[in-house]
Amino acid sequence: MNGGAKTWYFPDGYLPEKTNDGPMEAHEALMLFNVGDKPASVLLDVYFSDKPPVKDIPVKVGAERIKTLRLDHPEDLAGLAIPPLTQYALRVRSDVTLVAQFGRLDTTQDNMAYYGCVGYSE
Amino acid sequence: MNGGAKTWYFPDGYLPEKTNDGPMEAHEALMLFNVGDKPASVLLDVYFSDKPPVKDIPVKVGAERIKTLRLDHPEDLAGLAIPPLTQYALRVRSDVTLVAQFGRLDTTQDNMAYYGCVGYSE
Amino acid sequence: MNGGAKTWYFPDGYLPEKTNDGPMEAHEALMLFNVGDKPASVLLDVYFSDKPPVKDIPVKVGAERIKTLRLDHPEDLAGLAIPPLTQYALRVRSDVTLVAQFGRLDTTQDNMAYYGCVGYSE
Amino acid sequence: MNGGAKTWYFPDGYLPEKTNDGPMEAHEALMLFNVGDKPASVLLDVYFSDKPPVKDIPVKVGAERIKTLRLDHPEDLAGLAIPPLTQYALRVRSDVTLVAQFGRLDTTQDNMAYYGCVGYSE
Repeated sequence: MNGGAKTWYFPDGYLPEKTNDGPMEAHEALMLFNVGDKPASVLLDVYFSDKPPVKDIPVKVGAERIKTLRLDHPEDLAGLAIPPLTQYALRVRSDVTLVAQFGRLDTTQDNMAYYGCVGYSE
Repeated sequence: MNGGAKTWYFPDGYLPEKTNDGPMEAHEALMLFNVGDKPASVLLDVYFSDKPPVKDIPVKVGAERIKTLRLDHPEDLAGLAIPPLTQYALRVRSDVTLVAQFGRLDTTQDNMAYYGCVGYSE
Repeated sequence: MNGGAKTWYFPDGYLPEKTNDGPMEAHEALMLFNVGDKPASVLLDVYFSDKPPVKDIPVKVGAERIKTLRLDHPEDLAGLAIPPLTQYALRVRSDVTLVAQFGRLDTTQDNMAYYGCVGYSE
Repeated sequence: MNGGAKTWYFPDGYLPEKTNDGPMEAHEALMLFNVGDKPASVLLDVYFSDKPPVKDIPVKVGAERIKTLRLDHPEDLAGLAIPPLTQYALRVRSDVTLVAQFGRLDTTQDNMAYYGCVGYSE
């Protein structure tokens, strides 16, 4: 049984600054959860406020596996470096249904603050 | 391909006080994410607990762009000043489908606290 | 135009202890957002882990208004006192469609932590 | 009236380390909310990034009750010990409809940080 949806949207990306030397590094991550028995071929599109989107970043997710992408790691995004402190948004398109979630860990100040949610799907 | 919905609801708006001189300012923001190839004409309605709503605040979102509105900035709301520490709610109506999300950054105390989620859509 | 759904579910209620003398009091709240032009008659049901639910707590929400219920205030719940540090869940049933959201502000420690989300609706 | 869905997905599990001696212990929990008048027989499946899932962990939820599972307590998971600081994801399958939510309380640093949301259902 495959579960989820083929398209997901995350409107509120904003990479925190890495100003803190604490044990956990500020970051944003996208979790792709494929419960099906076929690998998923995913295309990731990154949108901005004031310039055209960067489309068709390819990602693979194995059958019955989770893939975690770090949005602050260009090597996870086919080389795309998203600048910190810049609003961006994500569209996830998959050839098979999956479930996606986006999360932020902010350590700008001495504490940490989480924020995460299942996205809008269709 | 256009994605999302034409109507979005956010029941829990509450502007924090700006009591902290830290590097990040307390605020609430509405992100409007238009993946389609046509600009979106949006009307924003602001509801309260004890008085009639303020309706039909016009907002434009470019094709394939994100628009961020600060709810504490009257210039983003056609001059409407939402008072701090007052419960309010938002309805977003768009002529094309889009995806909307609401977020709060609270710095009332020395730490910061995030809260944000994709809204209810139909 | 009425928006939303007639039934909402919030599985994770847990009233924090009020151990902190900071400027904001720990609490949980339910926001009921009625965009329609008719008042809403709502019945609230409170469920527990180890005892039968308390059902049919009546609540009114005016047309085009927001109503905020404090779950730690028995006067908002027809006298029901939900004990702190006890798991509970909410079902909201309305005679007209509305949008509901649940939020927690925890001040158990020196910082504060938010948590809130639009619920599951049908 | 039964409410909810039979299948739920939570893509972002990650047990925090228990490094803090504060009053609240870091943990993740799954809340299963059964408003129906029949007990629910649930099967829980735990997925990972780099190894096959552990499937068919049985859980019962009484009629009109909430069940809270601690993901850091093997006794709640038929003996499965999920390692800390490891990405995992959950699928919940129930024979009757219910509503599920996942939450994390992180106390890695001196503050605490909440994160929780109703999951994706179908």
